This record gives sequence, structure tokens and C-alpha cells, in this order.
Amino acid sequence: MATAGTTRTDKTDSQDLTDVDLVTVLQALSDPVRLEIVRQLSTDTELSCGQLELPVGKSTCSHHLKALSAAGVISEREEGVRKFLRLRRADLDRRFPGLIESVLRSTG
Amino acid sequence: MATAGTTRTDKTDSQDLTDVDLVTVLQALSDPVRLEIVRQLSTDTELSCGQLELPVGKSTCSHHLKALSAAGVISEREEGVRKFLRLRRADLDRRFPGLIESVLRSTG
Repeated sequence: MATAGTTRTDKTDSQDLTDVDLVTVLQALSDPVRLEIVRQLSTDTELSCGQLELPVGKSTCSHHLKALSAAGVISEREEGVRKFLRLRRADLDRRFPGLIESVLRSTG
Repeated sequence: MATAGTTRTDKTDSQDLTDVDLVTVLQALSDPVRLEIVRQLSTDTELSCGQLELPVGKSTCSHHLKALSAAGVISEREEGVRKFLRLRRADLDRRFPGLIESVLRSTG
């Protein structure tokens, strides 16, 4: 629901991870840039796109964010012109117990 | 070392998983047929290629086994004309703690 005075839409939080299969999530994680995004979001705070520090341009970054979002790994929330990203750590852990923690541990 | 009377070569056991990165392993696991191979090998016994029950032909199976072997996920051992496969569960768990267990748990 929109908060008074802001335009807020959460594109992915309503997506139930029950429908996401393991192959989809593994494919989404099988990329060094996407793993780095997941690592930077692992502090459990939301980050705006501009706060991510990545060795790729904006359009490549958007492509990777879309892949992670489609697989249910991250959620995107728009507030005005800014987009905020969040790792869906609890949802992932419920659907694939231990997976995201072991991946984060291995990314150092 | 060859055992008397048989021709045994282990192609992959000498490969140190220290050199294998997380992206390589995740890519190797990001396929339904390869996940099924891993699942069937998770009983910790060696299986010959012919013992795997897969919905693909022999050459496709070989392709997937090669990918898993190259990523250090399985080892292949030849004994005469037969090839035996084994999941490198302990090696994987040392290199990427918890990863293979969470993947196996999620494959049901």
C-alpha cells in the first residue's frame, strides 16, 4: 500500500518462493557480479542501486539485479525515483535451508 | 597406483578443490540433470555410469558428468572398461562448508 507522500512499490516481496526451484536460484547465483551483489546486501540493510560498488556499468548492473529479483534472491522497492534492494535472506532460508548462508560464507 | 590385474585410474581425486571457485561449482550444479546425478550419488556409494537413471541419452549424460567432474563435484574412476562415479562430498564440504548438504536437502 502506498505510504502518504511517497510512491512505494515493492515488486517482488509478494512473490512466493514456493514456486522458485533450486536450479533457478543456483543459476541466479552462478555469476561473480551477482554473487558480489548478494555479498554486499548480506548486511541485511537495504541499499540503493547507487550504493552498490560493482566493476560493471549501470545497464549491466540492472541486468544482474533483474536476474536476482526474478529468481527471488533479492527484492526491489521503489521510493520516488530511487530503487532500494534487499537480500531475501529469511525467505530463501525457509525455502532452501542453509543454502544462502553457505554461499555467503564461501564468498568470504 | 594400478592394482594388480586391473587398470584403475582416478582422473579427478588428485584435483585440489582449493583452486575451484564458488561460481564454477554453482554453475556445475545449475542444471536439473546434473542435480539429479548429484542426488543419485549422494548415498555415498560409487555408481557406474550405467547405474544412473537419467532422462537423457548417453552422450548428454557424458557431457554432464564431464562438467561435474571438471568443477570437482564428482570424481570418475575407471576400472577396466567401466567407469565409476562418486560425489566428492567431504572435499566439497571442506571447501564450501554446508553448500552440498543444503543443495541435497533442497533436491529432496
